[in-house]
Amino acid sequence: MKKLINDPEQVVQEMLSGFVAAHPQYVRQVQNTSVIVRVDAPVQGKVGLVSGGGSGHEPSHGGFVGKGMLDGAVAGEVFTSPTPDQVFEAIKAVDSGKGVLLIIKNYTGDVMNFEMAAELAESEGIKVAKVIVNDDVAVEDSTYTTGRRGIAGTVLVHKIAGAMAEKGASLEEVEQVANKVIQNVRSMGMALTPCTVPSAGKPGFSIGENEMEIGMGIHGEPGIERTEILTANEVAEILLSKVLEDLKLEESSKVAVMVNGLGSTPLMELYIMNNKVSQMLKGQNIEIYQTFVGEFMTSIEMAGCSISVLKLDDELIELLDAEANTPAFRK
Amino acid sequence: MKKLINDPEQVVQEMLSGFVAAHPQYVRQVQNTSVIVRVDAPVQGKVGLVSGGGSGHEPSHGGFVGKGMLDGAVAGEVFTSPTPDQVFEAIKAVDSGKGVLLIIKNYTGDVMNFEMAAELAESEGIKVAKVIVNDDVAVEDSTYTTGRRGIAGTVLVHKIAGAMAEKGASLEEVEQVANKVIQNVRSMGMALTPCTVPSAGKPGFSIGENEMEIGMGIHGEPGIERTEILTANEVAEILLSKVLEDLKLEESSKVAVMVNGLGSTPLMELYIMNNKVSQMLKGQNIEIYQTFVGEFMTSIEMAGCSISVLKLDDELIELLDAEANTPAFRK
Repeated sequence: MKKLINDPEQVVQEMLSGFVAAHPQYVRQVQNTSVIVRVDAPVQGKVGLVSGGGSGHEPSHGGFVGKGMLDGAVAGEVFTSPTPDQVFEAIKAVDSGKGVLLIIKNYTGDVMNFEMAAELAESEGIKVAKVIVNDDVAVEDSTYTTGRRGIAGTVLVHKIAGAMAEKGASLEEVEQVANKVIQNVRSMGMALTPCTVPSAGKPGFSIGENEMEIGMGIHGEPGIERTEILTANEVAEILLSKVLEDLKLEESSKVAVMVNGLGSTPLMELYIMNNKVSQMLKGQNIEIYQTFVGEFMTSIEMAGCSISVLKLDDELIELLDAEANTPAFRK
Repeated sequence: MKKLINDPEQVVQEMLSGFVAAHPQYVRQVQNTSVIVRVDAPVQGKVGLVSGGGSGHEPSHGGFVGKGMLDGAVAGEVFTSPTPDQVFEAIKAVDSGKGVLLIIKNYTGDVMNFEMAAELAESEGIKVAKVIVNDDVAVEDSTYTTGRRGIAGTVLVHKIAGAMAEKGASLEEVEQVANKVIQNVRSMGMALTPCTVPSAGKPGFSIGENEMEIGMGIHGEPGIERTEILTANEVAEILLSKVLEDLKLEESSKVAVMVNGLGSTPLMELYIMNNKVSQMLKGQNIEIYQTFVGEFMTSIEMAGCSISVLKLDDELIELLDAEANTPAFRK
């Protein structure tokens, strides 16, 4: 296992310590937890936003904690949901009395544990709402999911709901706009290589030397098709076509696009992917309002990418354009 | 070769097209060249900053074109210096009459071609100055270099010289502060895996399954030592010790730190590295003013990292803190 780590059992805690040491102007760690919060949490008069999930998807979600995005992020063990008590700690640390929105990727363990945490918080009088992101159009139902999986589109939910909360909106309003993003964002990914969970020490599955997998999930869950290695243009066409088919855009729609690397795909290749994505969208008379290219929702060191498209309206554009100042996302 | 590309001979042009399509608010491509410039270049009353080199180091250097950093970046073929005429195109596109500073990483081909471009520009009456970045303390002289190699510390030269130029400083003043950064920044890297130049189709060298190489260059140039796989703490100690030994900091010095991923190293591992780096610096009573963790100067999909330390004074701190707004770096 070729990794820059010390003890495989300590990777999450050591990562969190190194993260807080790098970004003390943005974040602090809630003592004796795996919870990262804004340095100024709880922010008075503002709804708190909490997300999280298994580690291994960095910069998700701790990298998005800061002004205009998340108030707190809970890090589970690698590819493992955080426990309800950890999520509860995050809720308590960010609630200013105005309530807390949980942004949950649709994996059975995450949904269950975040819901249990919500119940714990509500029993202590904290208002909690939750939204479930299920942007991955590759498959219905999967290894760890009933229904669609949540992947990189989640970061756009953080951005837009975070901007709404920063404006002083109520919990119901923030929840509403988060659901609006969820209804309008679709993603799909593919992988060239597997990845290795440190405590396992070897890849959880294999992909042949001349193969790739279309529609693979961010934990290596099966996709739609194992194929020979296709060109970037062919891959972009397959992923974007499926996303657009599901999104049903009208001509002249405005969209935000995210080309997301899964961990070891060079930026060069993501931009080559974006070259085809932007050509296809322009060819269909769809207006690209903004494009994000980089690593937002990774799978440890998996090679591959995902493409997300968010249909925008005036409200979403205003919130997308609002200031955000976090370790991994600034506007 | 597992890459998301189309034609290996077209990767640079397709990357540049996809890059400009993603970031039209920041950059444009000078027609029929591999030159990226600020969308508003040449900026009147401002010294122009140009950097560049072989491709494969993304986001360097195009990702740093924008307000407060570079005015232009020239992309050579992968791991190949751009030709003098391309650099000359960049100089012409960014000169507002106040002169142009070339920021060159110390590789023989780059130095030669940027110098030839400077002569071409001067013969047309454009004032040109140049600085050569040689921050890599691993080895004196190397495969493509006489003297030390230039690596990730170059990005801090872009940041600080860019802020100085943005203030309206003269060419001599911008050159001077760039040299001040160069005199005060040191870096060193290591690799766990090789990388594959697309047109070659296979790795240019190999690193055994249980080996890593300390001090390897960003094109795979030999380092100091091929060892068994060490822990993150051991690697951080080797790299940082060599950097600090060369930098000769006094107690209570203020520094900026960059933990840079070479392409396929997960952020998780970079933060684990930073955990040890920050502990070591604090243990030596050195004040960490700011830390940057991420991919700044990559080697296609090489696994590994580099650590850079920049000794700061009040002038450098002010310039480091100044606004920067580019695709890959925002402050």
